[in-house]
Amino acid sequence: MVGSVVLSMAPDEHFLIESINATGTNATGTLIDTESRDAQRVLIASTLTFLVGILQVIFGVLQIGFIVRYLADPLVGGFTTAAAFQVLVSQLKIVLNVSTKNYNGVLSIIYTLIETFEKIGTTNIADLIAGLLTIFVCMVVKELNDRFKHKIPIPIPVEVIVTIVATGISYAADLEKKYNAGIVKSIPRGFLPPEPPKVSLFSQMIAASFSIAIVAYAIAVSVGKVYATKYDYAIDGNQEFIAFGISNIFSGAFSCFVATTALSRTAVQESTGGKTQVAGIISAGIVLISIVALGKLLEPLQKSVLAAVVIANLKGMFMQVFDVPRLWRQNKVDAMIWVFTCIASIVLGLDLGLLAGLLFGLLTVVLRVQFPSWGGFGNIPGTDIYKKVKDYKNVVEPEGVKILKFASPIFYANIDGLKSSLKSTVGFDAVKVYNKRLKALRKIQKLIKKGKLKATKNGIISEPGINNEAFETDEDPEDNQDLQVPTKEVEIQVDWNSELPVKVNIPKVPIHSLILDFGAVTFLDIVAVRSIKTIIKEFERIDVRVYFASYQDNLISQLERSAFFDDTVRKDMFFLTVHDAVLYIRNQMTYSDNKDPIFEKIALMQESKEPIEFTETSRPGDELDVQEEAMRRLAS
Amino acid sequence: MVGSVVLSMAPDEHFLIESINATGTNATGTLIDTESRDAQRVLIASTLTFLVGILQVIFGVLQIGFIVRYLADPLVGGFTTAAAFQVLVSQLKIVLNVSTKNYNGVLSIIYTLIETFEKIGTTNIADLIAGLLTIFVCMVVKELNDRFKHKIPIPIPVEVIVTIVATGISYAADLEKKYNAGIVKSIPRGFLPPEPPKVSLFSQMIAASFSIAIVAYAIAVSVGKVYATKYDYAIDGNQEFIAFGISNIFSGAFSCFVATTALSRTAVQESTGGKTQVAGIISAGIVLISIVALGKLLEPLQKSVLAAVVIANLKGMFMQVFDVPRLWRQNKVDAMIWVFTCIASIVLGLDLGLLAGLLFGLLTVVLRVQFPSWGGFGNIPGTDIYKKVKDYKNVVEPEGVKILKFASPIFYANIDGLKSSLKSTVGFDAVKVYNKRLKALRKIQKLIKKGKLKATKNGIISEPGINNEAFETDEDPEDNQDLQVPTKEVEIQVDWNSELPVKVNIPKVPIHSLILDFGAVTFLDIVAVRSIKTIIKEFERIDVRVYFASYQDNLISQLERSAFFDDTVRKDMFFLTVHDAVLYIRNQMTYSDNKDPIFEKIALMQESKEPIEFTETSRPGDELDVQEEAMRRLAS
Repeated sequence: MVGSVVLSMAPDEHFLIESINATGTNATGTLIDTESRDAQRVLIASTLTFLVGILQVIFGVLQIGFIVRYLADPLVGGFTTAAAFQVLVSQLKIVLNVSTKNYNGVLSIIYTLIETFEKIGTTNIADLIAGLLTIFVCMVVKELNDRFKHKIPIPIPVEVIVTIVATGISYAADLEKKYNAGIVKSIPRGFLPPEPPKVSLFSQMIAASFSIAIVAYAIAVSVGKVYATKYDYAIDGNQEFIAFGISNIFSGAFSCFVATTALSRTAVQESTGGKTQVAGIISAGIVLISIVALGKLLEPLQKSVLAAVVIANLKGMFMQVFDVPRLWRQNKVDAMIWVFTCIASIVLGLDLGLLAGLLFGLLTVVLRVQFPSWGGFGNIPGTDIYKKVKDYKNVVEPEGVKILKFASPIFYANIDGLKSSLKSTVGFDAVKVYNKRLKALRKIQKLIKKGKLKATKNGIISEPGINNEAFETDEDPEDNQDLQVPTKEVEIQVDWNSELPVKVNIPKVPIHSLILDFGAVTFLDIVAVRSIKTIIKEFERIDVRVYFASYQDNLISQLERSAFFDDTVRKDMFFLTVHDAVLYIRNQMTYSDNKDPIFEKIALMQESKEPIEFTETSRPGDELDVQEEAMRRLAS
Repeated sequence: MVGSVVLSMAPDEHFLIESINATGTNATGTLIDTESRDAQRVLIASTLTFLVGILQVIFGVLQIGFIVRYLADPLVGGFTTAAAFQVLVSQLKIVLNVSTKNYNGVLSIIYTLIETFEKIGTTNIADLIAGLLTIFVCMVVKELNDRFKHKIPIPIPVEVIVTIVATGISYAADLEKKYNAGIVKSIPRGFLPPEPPKVSLFSQMIAASFSIAIVAYAIAVSVGKVYATKYDYAIDGNQEFIAFGISNIFSGAFSCFVATTALSRTAVQESTGGKTQVAGIISAGIVLISIVALGKLLEPLQKSVLAAVVIANLKGMFMQVFDVPRLWRQNKVDAMIWVFTCIASIVLGLDLGLLAGLLFGLLTVVLRVQFPSWGGFGNIPGTDIYKKVKDYKNVVEPEGVKILKFASPIFYANIDGLKSSLKSTVGFDAVKVYNKRLKALRKIQKLIKKGKLKATKNGIISEPGINNEAFETDEDPEDNQDLQVPTKEVEIQVDWNSELPVKVNIPKVPIHSLILDFGAVTFLDIVAVRSIKTIIKEFERIDVRVYFASYQDNLISQLERSAFFDDTVRKDMFFLTVHDAVLYIRNQMTYSDNKDPIFEKIALMQESKEPIEFTETSRPGDELDVQEEAMRRLAS
């Protein structure tokens, strides 16, 4: 990421020179002033480091460390694997000693890979052999180290040995001259003097610094998390931010590079027993000696050997791929996060890939909340426990009561899901039923007015031969003009579960109560509150009472604030448990049934100016005053 | 949005011509070939429309209509208000007759606004007066229309009247010549012949078409949703997509513009009683007549009058701002979505703003899930109901049992929240306690080895004067070197709630059981499963058993898949209800207490090679065989 900033701010084209006496590459056409280019690039990199450090300190002070929480393990796994792939591709072209353009941004790694393979004919055989040998030796020795780690006191430092041997061979055989091998050439010795960062560049690199500050931190902390789990301690995200920030501000002043973590080196130090900061001081000391004294000696070393050492160390990272099948078995969503982050980081680059992975992770959370498990619940006989009807045998749904548990918060994205699960649980569409009923009512009224239908004590008696006229061509029930019925003229109370004299296909409503188990509804947004209110009213219209059970404590006050309650929607709809609600409903029904046993009959009442004749029919065993009954029902 | 595509693909610079005889603007320097420019722009716009249509049909077929769900009401409110603001700014410069650059992309509306005010000195007074008058008249008449809507048969068509009057005045007073007013000038009459879309442009506009297809659809559907709610019908998101798609494909071939909805016109048609597609046909017919016959007559009309008519119609959109305070009272998060979407749509432009609003909305869902309500629960005496200790008086926590309800799914982003709520509920940090205990154990072992401490039947008796040596400087408990205690040498069972002979400050653990109420835990991700397993083991280490209650049915199978269960973590930790778990624990404890009443004492057991002397102390009333007891506890 630092490289892409450096390349975009100081590309080769800025340093093209015509003269021959400049320190040039061996390009044939124009020459590049590599010295001033590199000086400029170092300045950009160190300025970037300084800026990143400042940002990290700011993030730490602002307590932005919480973002660590969003780095889920699968995300870190996919991301680090993609990072390893990026490193592999960049090292591959060095092993092959193939020069490619410096690609930047989206798909750059793919382009680099393609170009590398297109130019594979230009491979330097000496470099390739040295690289492959190095990879092989490193892999084998590391495998041995791992297998016999209890028998040997310290792991064999194979990288050091290989580097020294390869340097010797290259020097002795003069690989550069004979085979045109790519060697390290000049390693600058000693230290650069401290240099103030170029503040004028800040504005150009602020966006990149932002993502580098986050990504560098995120990588380091995710590795840290692994060891925190292993050694039972906790990472303070903000403290890490401040530590990295100060480190980067300091090193930015000394032409250093943005600091993050190196997983392989960390693993080596941990496995060889380094536990405190002393281990860090010792390794820093050795590096110091190398820089000051040993740098010159490494100049004949082939670059491909160094690249091969890096590749050999990527093995652990790539092994993470084998976690994916296990992850898939355990949790498909998490496996998808892994794969998505990995692919996105390869395709989009590490910074955008991490962002995409983060967003994808958050999206999965939304989707998991949005599509909860739901189902009709029933009573386990003899207990107050309610379980899903589908999953449990011998679960009994209370007579005329449906219980729906929708196991998630309800908000704008899943309110449609709630509605459709409601429909499928109760078995009908409350709006449709209401519209059909209105339509039927209108037809009955028409027929009554025409005198073709008579309201009786026990039902509506139709004259023969009128059914065809009232026949309903099964039109769209959403046809709204039908709803404009002047129902005030004739008010009719109809038992909708009985046979009607008009052929309107009204879905049967076999329930009188609906209980929503809100046990997992931890919040409602304003859309949900409004929709639930609508749902209640839609069901009330077709004489189904809605109750809520096992709600969260803070729900009532939230609903109060949202103007949820009114004359129809009252607080006595809320019950502590599903069983309480069922018991209440059962009580209500027992009471109501005593006075109102007119199932499968039609009660008809009129308050219109032209009173309908009530003709006595000869049905036996009917002792109810229908009109009074209907009055009572209207009043209740 | 169409305009920005058109401007970026056919900017004025493409049509600069030197010759004078081209139809030019009155610019002094170079001239712009407006005819070929406009032809090109129309082609681009209609091609775009065609492509948008294709995309919309594809979206419809692919069932992408579900995205409607993510258009929460507050988001739609904020977005349409921002859209109204955009329109206002674009019309404002026409009312003032101030010419500005065509800004594009992020912040373009702000730049336009700034430039408009910078150039406010160049305002054309005639246009301004005409515009202000129009706005005033329109507003007043609309207000009257609204106030007396029950008394007048149809609303006064003020826009039509104003337009006709303004055209007459402009023509009579020759405003263009006298005051240099901006008039409509040429309205092309008739229809353009159908023109095939330029497929070669598709690749350049695919990204823009994508967002236009979504945004146009999203706006139309969100308005549709309002009337769907009002008239009790449901919108099929995919059907809408296909309808818009076919409409755009068709009209794209006739040099038309992308279709979406016009909230104000929709509102007018609805309020004047238009209900079916017939209303659409009638208005289309009138527009047709205007184009064919009346266009020429409108040419002297001032543009500022038209702009003013538009502005006067935006009132309803801006009135939405007054929803925000109510929304804030009802639900702060939803109010934040409104404000964020509105600001983002103004600052970033409508397309990016809608995207930002969508993401923000999803983020709020994540945050609401991530920071659930939680608390220690207690029993309401005499019932099996458990409620939050903080919220309810007279709630009793069972002896030695803590009950935590964490009311949300548990996943990577809130696992830290679960841990910290656990800590604060139980009152100690399980890891810290364990580390401190290990430390104390090590010290006790040292002292025993040195002979300064003796393990007794009833406790550890310290020789006088050794306490200072064992004094603990209150170091960081995370100091891991202390954990490397070779505890195998001497195994000691200590009652950690008693006074210890070493001065290690070990937090007291007043509980033996912890119940996690999983009633609202609707899913767990892999990070959560692992962490919960760790939590269980951390508590087991300090002799606190963890139980789970009122879990969701699918949880057990999910946990099984995730390799959650093993020898320590068993399924018998799961209970149907909190009360069941409490009863079980109470039973266990009663049984256990009968045999193990050694509270406030120390049990010490040794299996080391060098046996510790057990000295009989003179404490009365002690009849327990401590060693056997300790053995039993270890074995259990």
